[in-house]
Formats: sequence, C-alpha cells, structure tokens
Amino acid sequence: MKNKQIIFKKRPIGVPDTDTWNLEINNIPELKEGEILVEHHYISLDPAMRGWMNDSKSYIPPVAIDDVMRAGSIGKVIQNYGNKKFAIGDCITGWGGVQQFAITNGEGWYKVDEKLATMPMYIGTLGMPGMTAYFGITEVGKIKEGDIVLVSGAAGAVGSVVGQIAKIKGCTVIGIAGGKDKCEYLKNELGFDETIDYKTENIYTALKEKCPKGIDVYFDNVGGAILDAALSKLRMHARVVICGAISQYNNKSKIQGPSNYLSLLVTRSTMQGMVVMDYAKNYGEAAKQMGLWMQQGKLKSKEAIYDGIENFQETYNRLFSGDKLGKLILKVKE
Amino acid sequence: MKNKQIIFKKRPIGVPDTDTWNLEINNIPELKEGEILVEHHYISLDPAMRGWMNDSKSYIPPVAIDDVMRAGSIGKVIQNYGNKKFAIGDCITGWGGVQQFAITNGEGWYKVDEKLATMPMYIGTLGMPGMTAYFGITEVGKIKEGDIVLVSGAAGAVGSVVGQIAKIKGCTVIGIAGGKDKCEYLKNELGFDETIDYKTENIYTALKEKCPKGIDVYFDNVGGAILDAALSKLRMHARVVICGAISQYNNKSKIQGPSNYLSLLVTRSTMQGMVVMDYAKNYGEAAKQMGLWMQQGKLKSKEAIYDGIENFQETYNRLFSGDKLGKLILKVKE
Repeated sequence: MKNKQIIFKKRPIGVPDTDTWNLEINNIPELKEGEILVEHHYISLDPAMRGWMNDSKSYIPPVAIDDVMRAGSIGKVIQNYGNKKFAIGDCITGWGGVQQFAITNGEGWYKVDEKLATMPMYIGTLGMPGMTAYFGITEVGKIKEGDIVLVSGAAGAVGSVVGQIAKIKGCTVIGIAGGKDKCEYLKNELGFDETIDYKTENIYTALKEKCPKGIDVYFDNVGGAILDAALSKLRMHARVVICGAISQYNNKSKIQGPSNYLSLLVTRSTMQGMVVMDYAKNYGEAAKQMGLWMQQGKLKSKEAIYDGIENFQETYNRLFSGDKLGKLILKVKE
Repeated sequence: MKNKQIIFKKRPIGVPDTDTWNLEINNIPELKEGEILVEHHYISLDPAMRGWMNDSKSYIPPVAIDDVMRAGSIGKVIQNYGNKKFAIGDCITGWGGVQQFAITNGEGWYKVDEKLATMPMYIGTLGMPGMTAYFGITEVGKIKEGDIVLVSGAAGAVGSVVGQIAKIKGCTVIGIAGGKDKCEYLKNELGFDETIDYKTENIYTALKEKCPKGIDVYFDNVGGAILDAALSKLRMHARVVICGAISQYNNKSKIQGPSNYLSLLVTRSTMQGMVVMDYAKNYGEAAKQMGLWMQQGKLKSKEAIYDGIENFQETYNRLFSGDKLGKLILKVKE
C-alpha cells in the first residue's frame, strides 16, 4: 500500500505553477502507539490554501517546504495502534493534507455520522466553509431581520451558505458571482433576492439598481474592486465582514486597499476580520442548527467534486478561475 | 457696524486657492424676533473643513456656494430680540461660521463659563476636537489599562487629547507627528511614552523599534501610508479608530486605500469610523470629566492662535502644512 502525496516544493509568486507542488508516491510509515491511519476519501480545496503558501505572518504558520500540502480532509480509520478516541471504521475529518492516507494521534480530528450527511457535506456546508459562513454572518455581521445583506463570492462554499442563512434570518440578500449559471443558481435554487454578475455587469451601476437603499452588511470573500464598490453603498452603522480576498491572493505586487474606506467614517460603520478557528468550541452547536435547516430544506448544499489526486493542481485552479459551482472537493480514494 | 465674512465661492480641486473664498464686508441685517447677534471672538479651524467643501455624500451636507464658510466659533451675545435661551453678555459657542458676527435663534449653541476655562479652550480641548478625542478613544477605541495605543496627528487638537486620555487611563502611548519640536512637546510636556517623527523617520522601522509588541489601538487622523504601516502592527483583537485622513483630503485623484487591511483578518481586528456629533447628548459629561483632568494638571491644552479674519486662508493652510502646534484658532474680534 502506497500513499500518493502532494508535496509543497516551492513558494509561488503569483499563481502557483508546475514548480509549486510535486506528486510523490511514498511508503506509509508504521504507526506509533496511539496513532491511527486514515484513508482519505475527499480533500477540501479552499482559497485559504493560497495564503498558507506565503512565508508571511498570518493566523497560522505557512506550509513548510517539503511538507504535504495543508488541507482539510475526510476519510475512514483503517488502522489503529491503541488510539482510544477513534475505532476502525469511524468516519473522521481533520487537517489531513492533500494525500491519500494520513497518520495522526487524532488531535484536531472529529468523528461524523454518515447517516446524517454525506462525506462531502461534512467538509463543505457542515465543515469549515459552513462554519465560516455561520459565525461570520451571525457573530461578526450581526444580521437581524430586515437587514440588507450583500455577499461576494456568493456561489462559493462560504458565500452560498452566508446568503442562505441571511435569508433564513429574514434579510434581503444580494449575491455577487461570476457568470449567468451561478447567478441563476443563486436566485432560482437558493432563493437570493438579487444577483450581480460581476463578469458582465458594472458593479457600481448594478449596486445602484439592486441595492437602492444601500446595505447593512457586506460579507466580503473577494476584496479588490468589489470591496471598494460595496463600501460606497453602506448604510448607517453597517458591518463589513472581512472573510477573504480571493481577487488579491495571487497578486505579485501590493494588495489593492479599499480606497472608499472613509465611508466607514461617514456611515459610522465597522469593518472586522474573522478567522473560523476562533469559533471552534461552538462548531457542534452550529452544525446541529445547520443540519436541522438542511433537513427542513431551508439550507442547500452543493459540491463540485473532481476525481483523482493526480488532478490536484488543475482542480485547485478552479478556485481562482471560478470554473466550478459549489464547494470544491477532490476525491482521492481510488 | 460691518461684518467681515469669508464667503465660499468655488469648490476646490486639491488644495484650496485664492478662488476658493472671498472676504466680503457686509451690513448686518436687523434681528428678527427670537434672534440674537453674536460677536465672534474666535473661530475654530479644523481639517474637517476640507471635507465640507466637497460636493459629495458625507455626514453633513457640503457648504453651499456663496454661503459663509462653515466653522465652529465662540463669542458673546451683544444683541437680543426676545431670545429666551441667552442673555446679552453670555459667552456662547456654536457653528457660527468664519465671520465676525453671527445671527442665530440659538439652536445648536450653548453657553460656557469663562471662569472655568478660556474661550480658545472651549473650542479646543473642551470643544469639538476634545469631544472627538474623548469619545473616539474611549467608546470606539475601547481602551483599557495596559493597552498599547498609537495615535497619528498626535500633536494636533484631537491627537494630543487622545494621547493624554490614553495615558490617564494607564495605556502606553506612541504618538506620530511631523517635526522635532512636536515630538519633543509630546514627550516632554504631554508625557507620551514614545514619538515617531514621520518627516525624518521611516515609519515601518520606527514602529518596529518603538512598538515592538505591536499595538492594541490605532487612532487614525491621517490615513495614507501611516494608516497602512499601523495596520501591519496590530495585535490580536485590535481596534482601529477612523477619525480622519488629513493626508488624503487634498487629493486630486482617488484616496489611497489601506493595502494592509487584511491584517484585520489575521488579527481579528476591527476598523470603525466615527463622527463626533453622534455623542452630542454626552458632551456635558465628557466636558466635566476633561475639565477636572485639566484642573488636576493631567490634561494640557495648547492653542495656536492667529490674528485677523483677513489671514483666514493663510492660517487655514497651516492645518495641512503642519506649521502650528496645538489647536488652530483664528482670532476675529478686532
């Protein structure tokens, strides 16, 4: 039994290229006491991965050169050398990295119930992206009934859940996404009130038309020109949630700062950054609530699953090209 | 009796020039019932005046062309036609504009006690700049004992009070100002812990040296490159108070957005805008507290007073050249 692993070889400048990672086929070391061997079924591909490759101060240390590329994952325990937390056959999720098999002492991993949701859902809507959406829009965005909520990256793993939760909570929701298919999906399948296709519409004109009263909450996944435009539409005491800036992650030069930031002063608004790990102690409660909404048909989960660890790089690129609909997932079990 | 008035004639692009205002000498109209005539002694000159000249959405409407230039002021009631709020001889402060005499029904004006403080103090540390400092650093900055507080425009009317209040509350205070004299004043007279002279020091190097542990609160009066540098030094859960952006007010092109804004995400920090008018109902309480600190010698007030309404434009320019120390005030009583 061999382990196909995506090894991080070189820090990219701009878009990762063929020098960034190597696919290696390695032997699986013997387990030490207390360890388990996890056979991965699915790997979570997320925009945050781009940030983890930079050698700069951030909320977690960068991935080290020659390490397995960091990623969330889900799979089954297939060997156990005296680990008391998990048993063979358990379906568990954690930070297993982009590889077929992971060895761990179980720290940071937790067991999920396959009867309640599928494995891809557990790394999507019920996993890190879903938790980000849940705590971001409720705790940082502080949404209340009647709020007008704008979300960018709206068809993505986080944005689609943000918008749906805001709808559940009685808000008016406008989603910004790239392409007609995504916009139709948001409006027809997920019940968004309005959408803006940033690939074909002028963002300022579209905001004027679709948010004529301005916005109370802007949930930002993209940064750049869209963040700037959103700032120009803030209502009094608005909240801007800084969750990510996918439009800027591959920049070779400086990140584009929001030149309309003085709108925060004019409208007495708040811009706040968030990292999902801070809410870890409440994940269980959030997953329970979101699971219930899913059962009730109020919260829909969509995954874009691509097959084969060999296709990691091509699949990863879809995060930034936008060429996928829903939570991007790589299936690695052969 | 004639009234010398500074009339707003043309919206400036960039720095105001000789076309922006006219000095006019006009007759004083007769009072209507309920009105008073105020003889101005001092006019408050503030960076915010630059913003009020732009024809754009802001927290108050722009000054209209051919109106008296908006400004805070203080003076004495010299005529009264049945106004019940004020009596002849009262020393009162309000939004009288840049002119020698103002007619008002008294709305938005309030009486001050000349025995407790001087007129210039009432439009400085006990006036709008002082209130901005007080509520900005306590309510928005939420300072607590032991915080490391960085303030820009530190020798200005707002910044100098921000720093002193932070010291009173048990914080470590670093002030950014332009020039050796200002920095020495902050350290030797006002008790700041450290200063950075942005005219001679590299701001990143200086921050590294003088805030080695980072900052909990950044109170921003200047925007631009200094805001960007400050963002790079945030500690976890820091608060950035957006009070102004004097470095950007005369821009002919776009305002420089803070390209380090993703530091808000990394450190889970908050950037919040403020406008002093929102705290109007608590001005009295704040003035009482600050008056007490002044009596106790804990809070010092410094005014840079220039004489003559004819010198308005030249004096106004000192706000942006930095060529003054303390609260900038124009004496207009002849």
